[in-house]
Amino acid sequence: MERKYSVILGNLGNTRDRFCTGYKDNPDSAEMLKQAAAIPYVSGIELVGTWDIRPNNAVEMKKAFVDLHLKCVSIIPDLFADRIYWKGSYTSNDKNVRCKAIDYTRQMCDIALEMDCETINIWPGQDGYDYLLCADYSDQREWMCEAISELANSYPNLQFALEYKPMEPRTHSLLARTADTLLLAQETGCNNVGVTIDTGHAYIGGEVVGEAIVLTKRAGNRLFHMHFNDNHSTWDDDMIVGTVHTVCYLETLYWLDRCGYSGWLSMDQYPYREDAASAIGESILWLRRFDEVVQTHSAEIDQLVKTGDAVETSRFLRNVLMGK
Amino acid sequence: MERKYSVILGNLGNTRDRFCTGYKDNPDSAEMLKQAAAIPYVSGIELVGTWDIRPNNAVEMKKAFVDLHLKCVSIIPDLFADRIYWKGSYTSNDKNVRCKAIDYTRQMCDIALEMDCETINIWPGQDGYDYLLCADYSDQREWMCEAISELANSYPNLQFALEYKPMEPRTHSLLARTADTLLLAQETGCNNVGVTIDTGHAYIGGEVVGEAIVLTKRAGNRLFHMHFNDNHSTWDDDMIVGTVHTVCYLETLYWLDRCGYSGWLSMDQYPYREDAASAIGESILWLRRFDEVVQTHSAEIDQLVKTGDAVETSRFLRNVLMGK
Amino acid sequence: MERKYSVILGNLGNTRDRFCTGYKDNPDSAEMLKQAAAIPYVSGIELVGTWDIRPNNAVEMKKAFVDLHLKCVSIIPDLFADRIYWKGSYTSNDKNVRCKAIDYTRQMCDIALEMDCETINIWPGQDGYDYLLCADYSDQREWMCEAISELANSYPNLQFALEYKPMEPRTHSLLARTADTLLLAQETGCNNVGVTIDTGHAYIGGEVVGEAIVLTKRAGNRLFHMHFNDNHSTWDDDMIVGTVHTVCYLETLYWLDRCGYSGWLSMDQYPYREDAASAIGESILWLRRFDEVVQTHSAEIDQLVKTGDAVETSRFLRNVLMGK
Amino acid sequence: MERKYSVILGNLGNTRDRFCTGYKDNPDSAEMLKQAAAIPYVSGIELVGTWDIRPNNAVEMKKAFVDLHLKCVSIIPDLFADRIYWKGSYTSNDKNVRCKAIDYTRQMCDIALEMDCETINIWPGQDGYDYLLCADYSDQREWMCEAISELANSYPNLQFALEYKPMEPRTHSLLARTADTLLLAQETGCNNVGVTIDTGHAYIGGEVVGEAIVLTKRAGNRLFHMHFNDNHSTWDDDMIVGTVHTVCYLETLYWLDRCGYSGWLSMDQYPYREDAASAIGESILWLRRFDEVVQTHSAEIDQLVKTGDAVETSRFLRNVLMGK
Repeated sequence: MERKYSVILGNLGNTRDRFCTGYKDNPDSAEMLKQAAAIPYVSGIELVGTWDIRPNNAVEMKKAFVDLHLKCVSIIPDLFADRIYWKGSYTSNDKNVRCKAIDYTRQMCDIALEMDCETINIWPGQDGYDYLLCADYSDQREWMCEAISELANSYPNLQFALEYKPMEPRTHSLLARTADTLLLAQETGCNNVGVTIDTGHAYIGGEVVGEAIVLTKRAGNRLFHMHFNDNHSTWDDDMIVGTVHTVCYLETLYWLDRCGYSGWLSMDQYPYREDAASAIGESILWLRRFDEVVQTHSAEIDQLVKTGDAVETSRFLRNVLMGK
Repeated sequence: MERKYSVILGNLGNTRDRFCTGYKDNPDSAEMLKQAAAIPYVSGIELVGTWDIRPNNAVEMKKAFVDLHLKCVSIIPDLFADRIYWKGSYTSNDKNVRCKAIDYTRQMCDIALEMDCETINIWPGQDGYDYLLCADYSDQREWMCEAISELANSYPNLQFALEYKPMEPRTHSLLARTADTLLLAQETGCNNVGVTIDTGHAYIGGEVVGEAIVLTKRAGNRLFHMHFNDNHSTWDDDMIVGTVHTVCYLETLYWLDRCGYSGWLSMDQYPYREDAASAIGESILWLRRFDEVVQTHSAEIDQLVKTGDAVETSRFLRNVLMGK
Repeated sequence: MERKYSVILGNLGNTRDRFCTGYKDNPDSAEMLKQAAAIPYVSGIELVGTWDIRPNNAVEMKKAFVDLHLKCVSIIPDLFADRIYWKGSYTSNDKNVRCKAIDYTRQMCDIALEMDCETINIWPGQDGYDYLLCADYSDQREWMCEAISELANSYPNLQFALEYKPMEPRTHSLLARTADTLLLAQETGCNNVGVTIDTGHAYIGGEVVGEAIVLTKRAGNRLFHMHFNDNHSTWDDDMIVGTVHTVCYLETLYWLDRCGYSGWLSMDQYPYREDAASAIGESILWLRRFDEVVQTHSAEIDQLVKTGDAVETSRFLRNVLMGK
Repeated sequence: MERKYSVILGNLGNTRDRFCTGYKDNPDSAEMLKQAAAIPYVSGIELVGTWDIRPNNAVEMKKAFVDLHLKCVSIIPDLFADRIYWKGSYTSNDKNVRCKAIDYTRQMCDIALEMDCETINIWPGQDGYDYLLCADYSDQREWMCEAISELANSYPNLQFALEYKPMEPRTHSLLARTADTLLLAQETGCNNVGVTIDTGHAYIGGEVVGEAIVLTKRAGNRLFHMHFNDNHSTWDDDMIVGTVHTVCYLETLYWLDRCGYSGWLSMDQYPYREDAASAIGESILWLRRFDEVVQTHSAEIDQLVKTGDAVETSRFLRNVLMGK
């Protein structure tokens, strides 16, 4: 399977946390676009709604994409940075907020069509809850299902990739892991609703990405998009691929092939204290090397996963990672 | 909703770990049955196949249940202690083992019918994997689906409650959390396949039990059984209910009612160093008090989960737990 | 032991995360001070350096404290929000930054003396590392030790309370848990260097607070300060006390007494989406009730911890929490 | 630094868990010794007291060691499998048990001297607690300190290496991490009391092994022994080295050199479902390759840890692990 590499534009911008409002300066979108295009092997870009793309700059952005020979891989509506969604977007208790979230997403869908972008990557980060006995889980899931159904039915030519995450910014996200997100996708009854697996979100959720990929396959071929980064397993550190979960990426690429994934491998990092373009570039270089191993040894890996002998697998990994 | 309390018989027996072969002596099943019957409010018993119940003692056990006015709540086929299943039962790479697992489960189903027991609680503890690149997740899930389908179709009058658990004895279980287990239950196409939520397994998996209950409801009313115990969130410590996750149990009982659960509340503990009957009895007493709070304040809790104000919820919890 | 309750002033201000720059508006320090003073049972305040207190407003703040009958409990130098410390303060690789961090802390120490404040609460949040093979742990620990020694020797009348935390904003903090912080405190050779235990930081670090308190006692009576909040055990959620780790607080207060702690119980929350004063007030009300239980039942608890019978302890907890 | 590889003899025996009493058959000690000696690069063996070595077989074992050209690297008194220690050994509430634990350890110390073994590896697995409000942390730590002091003073020619572990078999171990174990070692006032770092225990405890090594160095050069294995970070899976925490081992070996460690690298695995000798052999082969990288690139790694640039470190790791 030929690999296509992309990056979320905002990865090149400022980084901050709840203590420090900015570790870096924030270049404008045009500047970041140029930097992204210069990262080796990057041929696609994801845009965050409002931040990078709005009705008033869509034409101009489209031109910039053409000029730089870039594909707009997805648009990610900003449902997480606008204070109005502080207690939920599609599942806010306030009906007006729920409507606004849907209307805003429609606006982003229209722009996507205009940008020849096929995927809306929905990360409803504010939908969830913080405390026990503080949420009606039944209402929330119903509202989420209704919102996504309505959008997916209105835009049959777009793919709605739901990006789950166990926590942050809420202590508990409504869409937390692959399987619960697939249950919701199936509930919508729409074939254009699927899942984005972010490798880091999977690690936090205790998932093995390879297995999560198989779940999406069995639930109606619903893996629509992939985000790549690494972390220390407890929080969304958004680090350079391969620096922690080295072996996992080999397995992930193998299962992407086994399940026929033909979508993008998109870098989603948050390089707090690193040069952004270099840190993103590193991830792609790691992935390309992992991929070389997978392609070269695919029959051997087939055999290893069929056999299930940890010693054989260890020997293989040692050889490909450590040279003998 | 009237609560029915039961216990897994083996909870009253020996306890051990990988280091120490026995912290206690093991009474025989008849003796344990008497001890269990004497625990206040216990009216049902779960039996582990082979250990407690076999073709050659089913008649005798049935009589013992009648004599002690106990209901056989579920039978749990032993798919975890027999060395033959060391690399999987329904999903072993060895077809003979897979067949044996199904045949053995059929035997347990026959006994269940004989015991007027309506539920087979399937905990496929050995099905999963330990190392990365050591399992064909696709085959495993297919084999699990086939096995459960075959059993559920053969025994339409029994309920098959799949008990998930994130890990142990394998580092990764195939059925790991509520949502992936529901996906599999749905794949079988059988309405008599559902889920057992073990509160401790849920905590380890990062689930909020109340929310997991809602998932089972939405996926076709598939909550068939409940196991109760507590732990420190990282491992299946099988402790006395309420001693760690105090507030969670209140919420759990509330959502059981909201979702119309009418099944058993079954204690599943492993009192390594405690008097077993007392430790189990404690859990039931905690649950009865939590339930009193839920019943007394149900309208108030309805309001709290609709409102989603953590300060209001805190005030409520403080009042019901701390007396003012 | 009479309890003294305080709060960190900034808890009453704006809240934000890396996605959203502000969930609330930020009142000025004078306004927050009034709000804090109005929270029942609050008689002390902690100030964050630069944010709340600077050379140019110390006189004015001192007057405000007197007017409101408040004690300045600690000053927390801002070593975490200033971009200059993005790769460490006392342990930056850049010597100029290390010097600046010490000089700035001296300034805060001078203000503390002026404010009749006895404690400098040092939270070196930026000191640590994010990636493996990216830090010289030996240099870092040496520099930290030197900086703290120099400060503690220069200000013998101030207590230096080192606040540890396992992670955030770095993926790994240099001062991560009670025991490693005590090792460093001992290395300084100064009796006025000790530890702040933040209950939430302890939970994230896998510590039982009661046991951590005993460690500080044995290491030369080095528990100088306490921060209170709650969380879901994986991240510093800074929630209302008692809403998750209910039982822990009982045990914590018991061990504070056992170890003769006479310092402040200071609330350190981050009420992202709650009314701040109410959320902080709730924590104090929980603690006061927990304390009532501890005081009323201290002989019984003595007995329970000596006996070590989980059933007895469960019965006790059930009675005091659930009324019977 | 020349590396010396050893293995705990019992690793070659039966494996079991609390469900299944045996996944394998158990060879006798003589047979296991032969198997261990045949693992490439193994030149030392650790023995578990009572299981492998007793007063009545010490002479015979000594001869077997000589015949096989093996060094007895440590003796590990069995304080974890004997039911008498079910509620603690050195810190049991029962004074008779505490005395018995010390007497038994003395017996093992005598054997160690007889075997020309310099290290007693103390893993007090049963010392700790399971429930909150069920242990007097102060008594426990005092008793532990007294026991270790007494032993260390009695056997000045032996090294007492305390092996910490966050949990299992108790939900909380008394010696949980490097730093608290160092505090206790220092409290004894004995220079022959130090620490065993088990890499897997460190991962569970949230430690970075390299940093833990630095702590032992600063606390009086107290790293006495190293156990190697891998796991998935939440439980002591005792897996083949390198299959999960690949990068960590590079860093660990680097810091062992930086801190002048000249002791053994001992394999401590529990190959539940693997051929034991092969699984252990794999770990050593991984370590030897990691070590080659560390030796070849030591100046470069020096530079990386001084610089602290994650992109540089990523590039280095990618090159040494992925060949370009």
